[in-house]
Amino acid sequence: MAVGAAYPRGFAAAGVTAGIKASGRPDIAVVAAERTVPAAAVFTRSRTAAPPVAVSRRAIADGRARAVLVQSGNANAATGERGLRDAERMVALAAQALGCDAADVLVASTGVIGVPLPMDRVEPGIAAAVGALAPDGGADAAAAIMTTDNAPKTAQRDVAGARVGGMAKGAGMIRPDLGTMIAVVTTDAELDAAQADRILRAAVDRSFNRITVDGCASTSDMVALLASGEAGVVDETALADAVGSVCEDLALQIVRDGEGARRIARWAVTGAADDAEARTVAYAAAEAQLVRCALHGGDPNWGRIIAAIGASGAAIDPDRIAIAIGGIPLCADGVAVPVADPAALDRAAAQDTVEITIGLGGGPGEALVWGADLSQAYVELNAEYTT
Amino acid sequence: MAVGAAYPRGFAAAGVTAGIKASGRPDIAVVAAERTVPAAAVFTRSRTAAPPVAVSRRAIADGRARAVLVQSGNANAATGERGLRDAERMVALAAQALGCDAADVLVASTGVIGVPLPMDRVEPGIAAAVGALAPDGGADAAAAIMTTDNAPKTAQRDVAGARVGGMAKGAGMIRPDLGTMIAVVTTDAELDAAQADRILRAAVDRSFNRITVDGCASTSDMVALLASGEAGVVDETALADAVGSVCEDLALQIVRDGEGARRIARWAVTGAADDAEARTVAYAAAEAQLVRCALHGGDPNWGRIIAAIGASGAAIDPDRIAIAIGGIPLCADGVAVPVADPAALDRAAAQDTVEITIGLGGGPGEALVWGADLSQAYVELNAEYTT
Repeated sequence: MAVGAAYPRGFAAAGVTAGIKASGRPDIAVVAAERTVPAAAVFTRSRTAAPPVAVSRRAIADGRARAVLVQSGNANAATGERGLRDAERMVALAAQALGCDAADVLVASTGVIGVPLPMDRVEPGIAAAVGALAPDGGADAAAAIMTTDNAPKTAQRDVAGARVGGMAKGAGMIRPDLGTMIAVVTTDAELDAAQADRILRAAVDRSFNRITVDGCASTSDMVALLASGEAGVVDETALADAVGSVCEDLALQIVRDGEGARRIARWAVTGAADDAEARTVAYAAAEAQLVRCALHGGDPNWGRIIAAIGASGAAIDPDRIAIAIGGIPLCADGVAVPVADPAALDRAAAQDTVEITIGLGGGPGEALVWGADLSQAYVELNAEYTT
Repeated sequence: MAVGAAYPRGFAAAGVTAGIKASGRPDIAVVAAERTVPAAAVFTRSRTAAPPVAVSRRAIADGRARAVLVQSGNANAATGERGLRDAERMVALAAQALGCDAADVLVASTGVIGVPLPMDRVEPGIAAAVGALAPDGGADAAAAIMTTDNAPKTAQRDVAGARVGGMAKGAGMIRPDLGTMIAVVTTDAELDAAQADRILRAAVDRSFNRITVDGCASTSDMVALLASGEAGVVDETALADAVGSVCEDLALQIVRDGEGARRIARWAVTGAADDAEARTVAYAAAEAQLVRCALHGGDPNWGRIIAAIGASGAAIDPDRIAIAIGGIPLCADGVAVPVADPAALDRAAAQDTVEITIGLGGGPGEALVWGADLSQAYVELNAEYTT
């Protein structure tokens, strides 16, 4: 079945096991168009970006790509010159197998940092993945990019006769100010490179840039969009909405699958001076460890929320803060509101998605973000295993 | 025995149980000089600072104080006008009992946020605490300011015939950019208000501003210094060093007692463009959840450290980063260094205090900070209890 990044016409995908992961799980994925097509990509803002990011940045500069190669189990990060040579070798091999230019292949690696790639396994893995490319390979590809993910993440939409599909991976080391972890999005709508870039950036801004698991950023994040053109021209606004919707779907799958996460919170902030300030407040609350622990415990502890708002650096008026959980007002004008039905409040704080609103009583600025809870399982996973 | 804030001559302290805490533990402390003396204080930078902070800011403006009243179990935060009136009533009662001006009493409250103070218990508690003031009450006072602390925190030093002593509380909601939680420091050296302010700010900068537990900031932080003058004038440099040393001692007790903490890391950063950039990098690493989980597990996972450095926002050169744990180089020029003795590395990563150095290969900027690990116990404590 055509799903995920291979859902739109003109794309194939594959996922194979090259033996990079000790677990023996699939670890090399390829998503490829039938020819080199208009494309766009956004990358991590980390100063210690991994070599594959450098190679992919160079490759996308001309706004065209044939394929995205994703390898999981090893981030090929902090690997210096050797890592750069390995990443270049990976795209050269994929390009050779596909019959395209090396500059038309994007590459992303994800996994442990600071360990050289086992190229003796990677090289045959790339050949095998390209050889396995198929229109129904979207699910295999999505499985082969997983690291600590509990489940593969795919999404697809139809829009005015065109299709949009995507896959993503990510569970830990997630924060908003970049394309979060790795996602490949495709469409068969016809786009030029500038349109693809514009649509992708808008989509990332409303999706991967709105989620947080642990506030940690990675060395390897990339989100790519490839447009095969097979469905012809589609209204750009409608297409942008569909791409945004696919990215939002994938982003929510990521935060819901946050390492050790039991539930997520949907944070809606209004009344800030501007949207940037609203986002500052939303992330200060969504990322605060004490708030995330309370979320985990289903504890409607708004005192920790107001402390996080106060420490956010935003120039808010403390006497105008309003906080509600599940629509139940807990704080108005900066002061506690008596809760008529504590049992209803406890239920609201224990939902799978807890709705939390913050009103700042100031300007028109607003923000909407999603964050995961912080659990003992997150600590256990990250204290006891080198990931 | 004269310890803690009552160690210097001219001070008395007390701690009593007023019944504010459900646990029945002591909850009101007073440290008082025999007369109104030169004093200084620093406060939280939170925009949602609690009413007691506003009252104490006003009281310290003239550079003089007679006493510090600390009440634990309820932060009197997000309590609005009522909270302000309650804080004013607290200092008025203490002043009346001490026979001084209300403007000479500082007050701090710590505990749950958003719940009005039970003044019917607080009021007799203040009277009882002032009545119990004694030169050997330092330990009682230190016990009465605890919240999630596992142990009271006191420190004292002798310097050129003068004494410096202090007490502090704090375990969670700890981060550096302010006086961390609540500390009262006293000396019998003779100081004017400007000297006290200068010495206190320098001491806080090298102590409470160098530690982190969870990166969360409180609504209620205050560090106060009172100088009785009974020991006469002491060389200011020597005294400043002793006050700094007491504050550092207390700060390390706080981070060591970090909620759920098993071990701490001492982060030394060198080679930054300036000290501010060094501090940015040090905190980015010390506060990164994945790094703190690895610290908890005794896992020398430097890949997470380099990812945190890259995401810190500091304009560092990734190809010049050096990282060592316990003096064992793990990364040089941004690339892994082979480890000759992995068992020695595992031992270094599992010390009570893990020494981690980061070299940035740039300018003269440096920083030294201490951070706690992140444990399942931290999550359990903060998910299952409203604190």
